Amino acid sequence: MRRTLIVALTLTTALAADTPAPKPILGFSDPAKEHALEARFDAALNRDEMRAWLKRLSARPHHVGSPYGKENAEFIASLFRSWGYDTAIERFDVLFPTPKTRVVELVAPTRFTAKLMEPPLPEDATSNQVSEILPPFNAYSVDGDVTGDLVYVNYGVPKDYEVLERNGIDVRGKIVIARYGGSWRGIKPKVAAEHGAIGCLIYSDPRDDGYFQGDAYPKGAYRSDYSAQRGSVADMPTYPGDPLTPGVGATADAKRLNRSEAATITKIPVLPIAYADALPLLRAMSGPVAPPDWRGALPITYHLGAGPARVHLKLEFNWNLVPAYDVIARLKGTDLADQWIVRGNHHDGWVHGARDPLSGQVAMLEEARGVAELAKSGWRPRRTMIYCAWDAEEPGLLGSTEWVETHLAELQEHAAVYINSDSTSRGFLDVAGSHTLERLVTEVARDVEDPQRNVSVLERLNALAITELTSPEKQKEFRDRKLMRLDALGSGSDYTPFLQHAGIASLNVGYGGEGEYGVYHSAYDSFDHFIRFGDPKFDYEIAQAETTGRMSLRLLNADFLPLEVTTFADTVARYETEVENLAKDMREETEEQNRELREHTMEIAADPTKPFVAPKAAEPVPYLDLSPLQNAVARLKTAARTFDAAPSHDDRILMHLEHALTRDQGLPMRPWYRHHVYAPGYYTGYGVKTLPGVREAIEQRKWKDANDQIVILAGVLERYAKMLEDGGSR
Amino acid sequence: MRRTLIVALTLTTALAADTPAPKPILGFSDPAKEHALEARFDAALNRDEMRAWLKRLSARPHHVGSPYGKENAEFIASLFRSWGYDTAIERFDVLFPTPKTRVVELVAPTRFTAKLMEPPLPEDATSNQVSEILPPFNAYSVDGDVTGDLVYVNYGVPKDYEVLERNGIDVRGKIVIARYGGSWRGIKPKVAAEHGAIGCLIYSDPRDDGYFQGDAYPKGAYRSDYSAQRGSVADMPTYPGDPLTPGVGATADAKRLNRSEAATITKIPVLPIAYADALPLLRAMSGPVAPPDWRGALPITYHLGAGPARVHLKLEFNWNLVPAYDVIARLKGTDLADQWIVRGNHHDGWVHGARDPLSGQVAMLEEARGVAELAKSGWRPRRTMIYCAWDAEEPGLLGSTEWVETHLAELQEHAAVYINSDSTSRGFLDVAGSHTLERLVTEVARDVEDPQRNVSVLERLNALAITELTSPEKQKEFRDRKLMRLDALGSGSDYTPFLQHAGIASLNVGYGGEGEYGVYHSAYDSFDHFIRFGDPKFDYEIAQAETTGRMSLRLLNADFLPLEVTTFADTVARYETEVENLAKDMREETEEQNRELREHTMEIAADPTKPFVAPKAAEPVPYLDLSPLQNAVARLKTAARTFDAAPSHDDRILMHLEHALTRDQGLPMRPWYRHHVYAPGYYTGYGVKTLPGVREAIEQRKWKDANDQIVILAGVLERYAKMLEDGGSR
Repeated sequence: MRRTLIVALTLTTALAADTPAPKPILGFSDPAKEHALEARFDAALNRDEMRAWLKRLSARPHHVGSPYGKENAEFIASLFRSWGYDTAIERFDVLFPTPKTRVVELVAPTRFTAKLMEPPLPEDATSNQVSEILPPFNAYSVDGDVTGDLVYVNYGVPKDYEVLERNGIDVRGKIVIARYGGSWRGIKPKVAAEHGAIGCLIYSDPRDDGYFQGDAYPKGAYRSDYSAQRGSVADMPTYPGDPLTPGVGATADAKRLNRSEAATITKIPVLPIAYADALPLLRAMSGPVAPPDWRGALPITYHLGAGPARVHLKLEFNWNLVPAYDVIARLKGTDLADQWIVRGNHHDGWVHGARDPLSGQVAMLEEARGVAELAKSGWRPRRTMIYCAWDAEEPGLLGSTEWVETHLAELQEHAAVYINSDSTSRGFLDVAGSHTLERLVTEVARDVEDPQRNVSVLERLNALAITELTSPEKQKEFRDRKLMRLDALGSGSDYTPFLQHAGIASLNVGYGGEGEYGVYHSAYDSFDHFIRFGDPKFDYEIAQAETTGRMSLRLLNADFLPLEVTTFADTVARYETEVENLAKDMREETEEQNRELREHTMEIAADPTKPFVAPKAAEPVPYLDLSPLQNAVARLKTAARTFDAAPSHDDRILMHLEHALTRDQGLPMRPWYRHHVYAPGYYTGYGVKTLPGVREAIEQRKWKDANDQIVILAGVLERYAKMLEDGGSR
Repeated sequence: MRRTLIVALTLTTALAADTPAPKPILGFSDPAKEHALEARFDAALNRDEMRAWLKRLSARPHHVGSPYGKENAEFIASLFRSWGYDTAIERFDVLFPTPKTRVVELVAPTRFTAKLMEPPLPEDATSNQVSEILPPFNAYSVDGDVTGDLVYVNYGVPKDYEVLERNGIDVRGKIVIARYGGSWRGIKPKVAAEHGAIGCLIYSDPRDDGYFQGDAYPKGAYRSDYSAQRGSVADMPTYPGDPLTPGVGATADAKRLNRSEAATITKIPVLPIAYADALPLLRAMSGPVAPPDWRGALPITYHLGAGPARVHLKLEFNWNLVPAYDVIARLKGTDLADQWIVRGNHHDGWVHGARDPLSGQVAMLEEARGVAELAKSGWRPRRTMIYCAWDAEEPGLLGSTEWVETHLAELQEHAAVYINSDSTSRGFLDVAGSHTLERLVTEVARDVEDPQRNVSVLERLNALAITELTSPEKQKEFRDRKLMRLDALGSGSDYTPFLQHAGIASLNVGYGGEGEYGVYHSAYDSFDHFIRFGDPKFDYEIAQAETTGRMSLRLLNADFLPLEVTTFADTVARYETEVENLAKDMREETEEQNRELREHTMEIAADPTKPFVAPKAAEPVPYLDLSPLQNAVARLKTAARTFDAAPSHDDRILMHLEHALTRDQGLPMRPWYRHHVYAPGYYTGYGVKTLPGVREAIEQRKWKDANDQIVILAGVLERYAKMLEDGGSR
């Protein structure tokens, strides 16, 4: 026996000398076993299956409320069931307007009627399903019938209106034409209405989305002349989901607002148009020449207006309640079954939605099949896995939001982490999310092989970052940091209700950057397009399944939840410095601008043959008392280091940490958003504002609010630090 | 008597209390008298006269060798004579090729023949003089008949070829198409030939020069679809002037090179084309999509090639010697008649040349008339004034260069300062030149009223600078500096032979920035265009005459020449720091690039479906011994301060200071260029390279040369410092 033992030990030692120690995994005392499990998981993945699902799911238009959308939900549910998941379809009844009348006419100085439709292409097999395809429109535009002179407002964000003001141009009573980009689209009609415009057109300029980027479809991947970008314009930074049921699930018996009470429906009519339809309008404009960075790639001189181009815009919608079908599939855990790992990807598309969202959906399905295979072969997850295929994401995250609102209490009790995905394609790993998950993400990226280069996806991403960094200092800093830097989450996909309303640590995971796009929210986002340009070999579909699969498996199996708070604390400290610098920079800029106004500098420099209106003097930026926030951050950093240094952790603390960053009262002007570290910007829409209460108060020059929010945020962080201190001293 | 004196003194005191002390003028012990003279000068200026001259001189094409060019020279000479100047026309016989055959054809994959001509416009009265107008061509292109696949090379500068190399594209045996901009045009065929191309097309992209900037002519000012930019492509950074007579005047009996020996004629045929002619060629191209900053404003996807667009380019020229007529007009000084102030502006234009050069020419004529009026009314200049109206500037500064080469010895003996002008228009003062003249220029700008705003042209220029500066640090630095910052002179107009060959302190003076252009070197640079867009009220023609007139008058009348060496020394110190940083930055970039090559970073990041060729490892940048230069600069700064602090100065030293910055051996590879502080860049053409011997050796990674040039430059600056020390201790 003894001898045998010695031999065994010697063998083990010999093995150890030949094979390197297994790479460590946060939360696992036996990483080798987990690596072995993941290798089995990888081996089960099948690209042909994903390709077949993608073709099937994208065969017909499948927006919320469509017949094929329902078919897809049922098909997805049948797959989950076939793999052994406890599967249900949850239905919500949501407001979803579809177009009845769409008219855009140039009525002066010449006449032109916009086509407003995407022609079928022989090279794109599904583009001819004209009767089923929802034509280009913006969901949650109000009905309207307006005529007005056109003003070009660039991206239509607040600072663009400052430029117009300098040029003596007022949009009151006018129709604005904005190009896509620079903000989430819903910001454009919101800001236009705030400035008194009566209508809004949003077009895809080929500079940002068209031939300037690459050959137009079908020759190349990029947006063609009559292709338009559909999309929601609900005021999502106020609240996402069904406009009629803010804060509660849109169940059959839910109490609903009247449509006129819904705060997120636009104040003015808005419609997206293609660049072939925009060109005659823009060409007919006059007035000051647009500033250089406002000019697109159409072969014209861009003018600001107003007019002489005069436009008639008429929009009417069918304001129907339609059913949304969320597919929810559970695999119950063993000893930690009351801890839920939630994974989601929407299934509705604006039209065929091959890339958006089905590229992500089929990778999630394949992941779920792989997990189920493991479960069938004897392994069981310690925690409970929940896969969600959301409906109605496109009109404004309705499927996920209504589900989270319906199940809020149990999710806050049980859900540890939410992992979202959406469109994915060939290229580089792209993860954003809660910074407590930075190490988990880094370790997963370390362990997934890039399909095109003989390195990990982490190494490939790092290589890209290094080639793109311009200064030696930044390169050094990047190389010295061993962790992948996660961007914070704003909005734009189904993580928002989880993270920012329920306070559940969340990630958004995808690949991209090399898969050419150019058909976003158009009728050409098709299977034919995806297999030419998106991910022809389904290499990155596999990589995506390997990546999110590893994240799920590690979260399901870990000894304790693999969260790390030091990275979070350091990141909050960076944000705090940003906010300090924001106030400092604004103060200096205000002083400078006010000095220039006193000295008439801008007026002296301005061309007297052109309109010029000097800005008004701004109130000086006071010194804010940031000390409560600075003290809270300092405490947080210390508490985090002590906490992470402990040999193991209590999941009951870890899984509720993110929730501690929320307050039930929510953010100013938008109580639905409860997270005090991450929020979509009130004037960016998708773009994140970290420490949003403080940052946006400063940006909006509300000094009293800024001081209040500093104290509130400091309180949130102090409470979080105390949780760590209490948990760490266990 | 005594009482009278007291009363007189009291009166003087009282006057002094009411009227502020006259603004000081460098070189004048009695500035009030000079201010009064300048007020009389201003009062004599007449905008109607300038307008009439501009109309007359631009009535027909007047390129060198043309009948109307000769008429203009004779008319200008008759004006000078009528005002009392001792006037002569000096003739040189110079090589000036004109086009015989110009063919640009797309021969594959489709066929297209370029029009290569600018259509007459009813809105532009002189655009129909088709028989006299030289069609678009590049002077000093070789004859050639080549066919090859097209490669798009962006601006065609050396770094663009590095990008092509990364994309696996070789231009050997190909025809390149470059857009105008990014360098002087002559650099494009030079660099293309160095890389093995067989032909070169240069087109005006509407992004840089056309509708992207503003409405096209005749609706607006900007370049229209068939308008092309003529211009010289002689290798001017090697030597300007007649290609057959480098270094000597092209007099009737001058020894001339054979054409085949002339180093400045291009190695490959080159032709400028309009964007309407370029569009079918660029549209027919394929290959990798051009990088974002290479893309212009044509409504296409920009591809690099090579091919499948295949082009036939055939060019033949009449290689004639033609007469160039310089008009030289003198007004002899009194006690300092052997000190010459030289003032020049060319009179030849590519076609009608209303803006370029006649806008500058008529302002110079008006200045000369104003000076003559003063001279008729009793005042006499102490120093000698020489006005020069140059011919043949457009093909490569021939008129000025041949004159300077012919009169080199006497100019170096007598010429104190050369003041050049060229195109001028509405807007902001723009002066570049020798930094010893920075205070003179600042004081003049202080004393000229802006025609549009109730401030001096200096205050208006400062206001522009402040609004354009982005950081508070830069704004503070700018406000604290009391002097106008002169840019250094590279090349592009007739100051080059004076400054960089003869070593005479020089300025180039004009206004602009608000007068819209867009017709540079086209048949539409006309009187009609100028009075709509250039300077409709001739306001800035008056300002230009007031500005250069003041410079001339102050240089003519000053007690001692108004040069200041401290500003020069401080500027050289800045240049020295730039050169240090250049070497440091190149060292870091080289280390980083070589590291990335060792680690395959670029390759890992590159898209494997696209061509990618990694750069070769570069030789590390050694540490250079900059100490001789640093010591010379330190000595220069001390010597300059002591020198400037002396109460008066010896003109014999001041007028020869600039010459001390030259060496008869000239710069490496181009001995004609003798100045060691200012030179046009060997690979920029017009763009200046300060401390050119050292800077270009570093840029070109010639480390041995760099160390040699450091010692040479240090010697030049030490000699200069010694002149100051010797002169200052007088």
